[in-house]
Amino acid sequence: MAIKIHSVGGFEEIGRNMTCVEYEDEAVILDMGLYLDKYISVQDNSKTLTANQLIQEDAIPNPDYIRHIEKKVIGIVLSHAHLDHIGAVPWIAKRYNCPIIATPYTIEIVKSILKDHKKKLSNEFIPLNSNSSYPLSSNITIELVNVTHSLPQAAMIHVKTPEGNIVYTGDYKFDYNPIIGKRTNKKRLKQIGKENVLALMPDSTRADEERKTYSETVARQMLKDVLLDMETQGHGIILTTFSSHIARLKSMLELGQELGREVVFVGRSLKKYIDAAEKLKIVKFSNRAEIIPSARFAKKRLQEINKIREKYVLIMTGNQGEPDAILTRVVKDELSFNIFPEDFVVFSCITIPTPIIQANRRVVERILHNKKARIFKDVHVSGHASREDHRDLIKILKPKHVIPCHGDMNKRASLAKLANEMGYKMNKGVHLLQNGQNIVLS
Amino acid sequence: MAIKIHSVGGFEEIGRNMTCVEYEDEAVILDMGLYLDKYISVQDNSKTLTANQLIQEDAIPNPDYIRHIEKKVIGIVLSHAHLDHIGAVPWIAKRYNCPIIATPYTIEIVKSILKDHKKKLSNEFIPLNSNSSYPLSSNITIELVNVTHSLPQAAMIHVKTPEGNIVYTGDYKFDYNPIIGKRTNKKRLKQIGKENVLALMPDSTRADEERKTYSETVARQMLKDVLLDMETQGHGIILTTFSSHIARLKSMLELGQELGREVVFVGRSLKKYIDAAEKLKIVKFSNRAEIIPSARFAKKRLQEINKIREKYVLIMTGNQGEPDAILTRVVKDELSFNIFPEDFVVFSCITIPTPIIQANRRVVERILHNKKARIFKDVHVSGHASREDHRDLIKILKPKHVIPCHGDMNKRASLAKLANEMGYKMNKGVHLLQNGQNIVLS
Amino acid sequence: MAIKIHSVGGFEEIGRNMTCVEYEDEAVILDMGLYLDKYISVQDNSKTLTANQLIQEDAIPNPDYIRHIEKKVIGIVLSHAHLDHIGAVPWIAKRYNCPIIATPYTIEIVKSILKDHKKKLSNEFIPLNSNSSYPLSSNITIELVNVTHSLPQAAMIHVKTPEGNIVYTGDYKFDYNPIIGKRTNKKRLKQIGKENVLALMPDSTRADEERKTYSETVARQMLKDVLLDMETQGHGIILTTFSSHIARLKSMLELGQELGREVVFVGRSLKKYIDAAEKLKIVKFSNRAEIIPSARFAKKRLQEINKIREKYVLIMTGNQGEPDAILTRVVKDELSFNIFPEDFVVFSCITIPTPIIQANRRVVERILHNKKARIFKDVHVSGHASREDHRDLIKILKPKHVIPCHGDMNKRASLAKLANEMGYKMNKGVHLLQNGQNIVLS
Amino acid sequence: MAIKIHSVGGFEEIGRNMTCVEYEDEAVILDMGLYLDKYISVQDNSKTLTANQLIQEDAIPNPDYIRHIEKKVIGIVLSHAHLDHIGAVPWIAKRYNCPIIATPYTIEIVKSILKDHKKKLSNEFIPLNSNSSYPLSSNITIELVNVTHSLPQAAMIHVKTPEGNIVYTGDYKFDYNPIIGKRTNKKRLKQIGKENVLALMPDSTRADEERKTYSETVARQMLKDVLLDMETQGHGIILTTFSSHIARLKSMLELGQELGREVVFVGRSLKKYIDAAEKLKIVKFSNRAEIIPSARFAKKRLQEINKIREKYVLIMTGNQGEPDAILTRVVKDELSFNIFPEDFVVFSCITIPTPIIQANRRVVERILHNKKARIFKDVHVSGHASREDHRDLIKILKPKHVIPCHGDMNKRASLAKLANEMGYKMNKGVHLLQNGQNIVLS
Repeated sequence: MAIKIHSVGGFEEIGRNMTCVEYEDEAVILDMGLYLDKYISVQDNSKTLTANQLIQEDAIPNPDYIRHIEKKVIGIVLSHAHLDHIGAVPWIAKRYNCPIIATPYTIEIVKSILKDHKKKLSNEFIPLNSNSSYPLSSNITIELVNVTHSLPQAAMIHVKTPEGNIVYTGDYKFDYNPIIGKRTNKKRLKQIGKENVLALMPDSTRADEERKTYSETVARQMLKDVLLDMETQGHGIILTTFSSHIARLKSMLELGQELGREVVFVGRSLKKYIDAAEKLKIVKFSNRAEIIPSARFAKKRLQEINKIREKYVLIMTGNQGEPDAILTRVVKDELSFNIFPEDFVVFSCITIPTPIIQANRRVVERILHNKKARIFKDVHVSGHASREDHRDLIKILKPKHVIPCHGDMNKRASLAKLANEMGYKMNKGVHLLQNGQNIVLS
Repeated sequence: MAIKIHSVGGFEEIGRNMTCVEYEDEAVILDMGLYLDKYISVQDNSKTLTANQLIQEDAIPNPDYIRHIEKKVIGIVLSHAHLDHIGAVPWIAKRYNCPIIATPYTIEIVKSILKDHKKKLSNEFIPLNSNSSYPLSSNITIELVNVTHSLPQAAMIHVKTPEGNIVYTGDYKFDYNPIIGKRTNKKRLKQIGKENVLALMPDSTRADEERKTYSETVARQMLKDVLLDMETQGHGIILTTFSSHIARLKSMLELGQELGREVVFVGRSLKKYIDAAEKLKIVKFSNRAEIIPSARFAKKRLQEINKIREKYVLIMTGNQGEPDAILTRVVKDELSFNIFPEDFVVFSCITIPTPIIQANRRVVERILHNKKARIFKDVHVSGHASREDHRDLIKILKPKHVIPCHGDMNKRASLAKLANEMGYKMNKGVHLLQNGQNIVLS
Repeated sequence: MAIKIHSVGGFEEIGRNMTCVEYEDEAVILDMGLYLDKYISVQDNSKTLTANQLIQEDAIPNPDYIRHIEKKVIGIVLSHAHLDHIGAVPWIAKRYNCPIIATPYTIEIVKSILKDHKKKLSNEFIPLNSNSSYPLSSNITIELVNVTHSLPQAAMIHVKTPEGNIVYTGDYKFDYNPIIGKRTNKKRLKQIGKENVLALMPDSTRADEERKTYSETVARQMLKDVLLDMETQGHGIILTTFSSHIARLKSMLELGQELGREVVFVGRSLKKYIDAAEKLKIVKFSNRAEIIPSARFAKKRLQEINKIREKYVLIMTGNQGEPDAILTRVVKDELSFNIFPEDFVVFSCITIPTPIIQANRRVVERILHNKKARIFKDVHVSGHASREDHRDLIKILKPKHVIPCHGDMNKRASLAKLANEMGYKMNKGVHLLQNGQNIVLS
Repeated sequence: MAIKIHSVGGFEEIGRNMTCVEYEDEAVILDMGLYLDKYISVQDNSKTLTANQLIQEDAIPNPDYIRHIEKKVIGIVLSHAHLDHIGAVPWIAKRYNCPIIATPYTIEIVKSILKDHKKKLSNEFIPLNSNSSYPLSSNITIELVNVTHSLPQAAMIHVKTPEGNIVYTGDYKFDYNPIIGKRTNKKRLKQIGKENVLALMPDSTRADEERKTYSETVARQMLKDVLLDMETQGHGIILTTFSSHIARLKSMLELGQELGREVVFVGRSLKKYIDAAEKLKIVKFSNRAEIIPSARFAKKRLQEINKIREKYVLIMTGNQGEPDAILTRVVKDELSFNIFPEDFVVFSCITIPTPIIQANRRVVERILHNKKARIFKDVHVSGHASREDHRDLIKILKPKHVIPCHGDMNKRASLAKLANEMGYKMNKGVHLLQNGQNIVLS
């Protein structure tokens, strides 16, 4: 019998990832994500879209591509808690009468998103720690392998079947000195490499960068240089990053304290991810820093801080210039907090390269510039493997097939080119699929 | 009486830096450098050019600009040991009947260059440690202030006169965690800022980058990620960087040992800078690593290493693709050492952006690519202050005038723009000069 | 007696140009423009700002810089009808009790802008044809020299005084085959070059481009290639460019007719500039094409055209993605006109490189992309002289001084660098000023 | 029976194009090119390489990929006379006992190259005019369809079989106003589109550019602007372009004469291509211009011209900075001709983006810059279709399959992405192959 891989979503864009692995009369879904850029455009018009509308707008994967095997699905496995991997769960998961398997942190975030959307699911949640396995059936076992990425408890998904195994990387990097959590479990990957990897499905997000992705420690040192080695005395300091990036937030908190300032987190989404991390004892921020849960509470508190700003490090939502985020509202003078000349505003992130997000960020930066703030951008290291990391992974796993995913044609073509260099032949050993296709592996 | 600043060289290019500070009947020359790009072009045709020929070709500063005050010169002060700051000493210094003052390491390198060119100077060498002063006359005192840069014992030059003081930065950065040496002496700079800085002459090399320059520790971590976190087992490892970059070489040596390999330095220019650093007890490499002094000795030794390459980390000259350097000759199969597929070649440097050098590097990279080596580029952090560092320095020193140097018009215009933002008026407080001009400050 | 040049606006930005030439007890103002990017930001909050508010926000030049010579001003001369050269007239001109001199087309547009803002001026308007002179006083004569630019009747301003002459270029290019109007009057410029040019004040907008700016004929051919050489049959065609660019609009009209389609202009600002050009008999569009004067009228008419789109070429406002423009509203489905897959949308312009405008354009392009339109961008040739054109102009005019204007520090530094190459010395022959400064020339 | 397409060369690089179409017991080879970048690297070491050595070095296609069907080959068809399409003929063609079919100009150039390499072929040459057909066998007919490209008599190859037809584009563009020759034969293409196109094999060189490629007329106008609209009086003028670009050379000749100067062509390769074009009566240059056939003759003649340079327009080989070309040798002072300050040097070409060529060009430009010449670069329009041209072609031909060729993975992926947008499914309707693969179409 053969294994069939269905490329449902994320094979024409960076977003709405969803893959389905079919084996005999069973199937497993890997990830169920949102296409953020489309989702944002759509939201502008209306906020209560149905699943069908979101599918129509290409904001979530189209589950009709696997409708004919819907009944076969015995499990939904989520690699990690980013929206482009889990954000479609509230709309699609209910189609499948099966459990959702993920690390505890990922499950915590899924639940929190369901709550945000006032949705309920009847699917059972099965928390599975990294570096452990769960037998879904007599034929299919799911193993989660710990990887480092830009949020806690990310995992590669190892789908084991009698006919061979599939490794779906999700987002990952090799980080020699991660700030929180353990390194990517290379030891286990080397074992897996000896156990017949039929197909590797790697994240292509940064496969076009001809380098190694550096450690989160590099980002921490960059932040340290800006915060501890510059003339900050007497000036306000505002930091912003991806709200889910707990390791970065930890560095910010610790460096803020090293600077002798009070650290305050401000914003709903920061609150959400920190709460989840604290609940699972991944970090403990709330006893060392103030957390203002939303703009509603921020106004009064920021007004007080405004007067003695030089005693604080403020960590705000709004790293992508999101119109409703705290930093954006501060910049637009909506929250009783001033940006004064020479105040530090540090964007510890990249700007996600989609038109609407870039437009938002430019507007925020422009106003900051007019207010004469000192702006620091790209104080950041990526959470995604680059080409040379992928080369290592392929060397380690020695898969029979490589099926690049998580990226548009150009990104995935870069990974295909790497595979070609390593001896994989086009359409024989390395495969470029589209959304809605499938491939039979034997 | 007024102070006159003569902009002799480095005001229309990145290279051949030379400034002269005139006060009453005395004058001091700051730096005496080479314009490497022109020097290289010129060398192609002939190797034994006279001073006049080098001047004609714009390869060294034109001392005729200050011929009328030649007799006034009572000291030549060198900021640090890079060729664009000291490389013209063998040809021009003899015009001035006065001592040469610099930190011990800088003097050591000057002497070594004189030896390379078989030149002798009658000028006295006066070693002056960083963070100490030397009274050149009753009116003029020279102070060297320790700064971090990409080689040991770099210094800002503080020229003190009764009418006010001049701070000439040379190349510098603020580095919170330098790998060797101490941080830039900010404490002393803050004192100097209170003592009437008449003019600041900052290095413009990276004034157009709207950021802070990060610490050398970031470069070390990047190197660590490449060396310790990748699948190097069984493969050759070749590293290259600027031969004068002792801190980087130290990281390379230590990381190579951490990897459990023997470390070998290969190349004449590596030997020269390491010898100088060892002589002054700045580092001690030779008891922990093998040093092959030149291509002549390299051939036989590399042939041996070739067979057990997986036990070595080779650090070679040739980071800019210089045709005679070891790496270039290895790549061109001239030194009995093979580049095998998947060998690691790490360029821990930028490529200097001049046409001939870029052309050289491209050729080396191309052959490496054809040999299927794994190439890592830009594993590097700059040694030059960026715009936000300059902003800090101006805040600290509060100079009356800012005279950007070390850069072409566009680079210096970026620094002028920064000064404008900080309230300095064009031609009143901030001045853009050309080679061969002067300005009277009062 | 000496001539004094006051750099009032446009010396730190591309926009709000204003220069004042003072000679003895008289003075002349050259241009009075808007800083569009700031003006747009400011408008977001309120639409009825006072002159003082606009000055405060840096949206218009600050006339206080020349308040002390306000009474001396005997004329305001406008180089051409672009907003960054005339847009501040409604707010500032009334301070000066003197006539406004410009070509007839420029005056027509100024009047139309005054009407838009419901403002009246008591200043007399003196229309002066290109290539003719007007004696403002016994000492000062104004000559307008015809130049080609991206709108009709642009002129260099030649200010003649007994002590020497000033040539202020305004925006210009050398165009060998302009589509409308005559070539830049090189013959006259060569005469002027023999008559003692004390200072040249060139537009720096594209001085950093190391090339010649090509003819408008190139843009026409590009448009022709897109319209006549592609598979347009059965598809809608929408063109957009700067509304004031009458030559480009003429090409669009003629090519649309060559294609056998009806041509329709849609939008208030297109109507305004076409009306002015027709009034002065520069072109005659209205007998060959339909002109829909505004969105109000567009809705019904576009609804009809929507059904037989393949018979029309639509020329719409909105080339910069302006939120209120016709194309933007069409794209956002507000005007009963659909963009169908494979419809042609041609941006015959650059995107002005300021954050808010770029953000607007990106949003429009994104929606067009989602609608599967065929998008053609940068089908355009600039109206601004590049470096090699400036070199020619300096050769021709042989000015004693060069004072770059119309640009931020970096743009003007590029022109200074060119002047340096040609032998002008910094601060002796070429001068970089800031807003609010002045320089005495003798 | 099915048709099999063999992707022999040009599917992993821009160069060494070779495709083989197999049908039953017959096969046809399309193009047989050189990989110039590799060929240049290889030549550095030795000039008399064997076919096997060139294959080993990836400088020419590897014919072993189709060795098993070698006897089936009944024709070699060449699309046009560029080296990346015909340059391997001297080494490989003899393997096939069959005629070589091409347009007369292409055959002329092939013969000239054979002569250069002192090679002889026993294959018969069959000249076939564009827009005509040749029946190779009862099953296979070859039709050449006229296309515009950057040299004369380029053709698309239409391979007709009983099971369906293959259109192999070679290099092409749609040019509404070509300077010589006729437009791409769209009328015939539209007919072909109705006759069952089984597969389209398009040139991917510029498929990643989201635009239409403009007409050669645009390049001519650019040249005209530089030559006729600038201050050239009294200065030397040197032009350079691809020697095979007869249309560009024609514009240069005519514009030089319009300027009132003598036009002189200098260089072996210019002589070769002009001779071929004259022989076939495509153009007649030699009665209107002097042609200096090589460096040997150039020295004396250039010495004369050197003194009255202002009366000449010199068109030289060396547009890519080739070390042996005339311009390069002039620049290096080897040919008794000076470059004086303000002389015009116009590169009417792109720089081919490969490391060695870019390095060569940079060196030439640098010396020119030092000599203070006025350099004009990229006065050029491409001869390759861009994405929107390909979209038109696919619309016109409606092929069942699209097989991008002539490009590395990334270039071809861009064409695949376009095909996806137009409804072709990956691996069903659009196929990305590697060198040495094949695909069966039915």
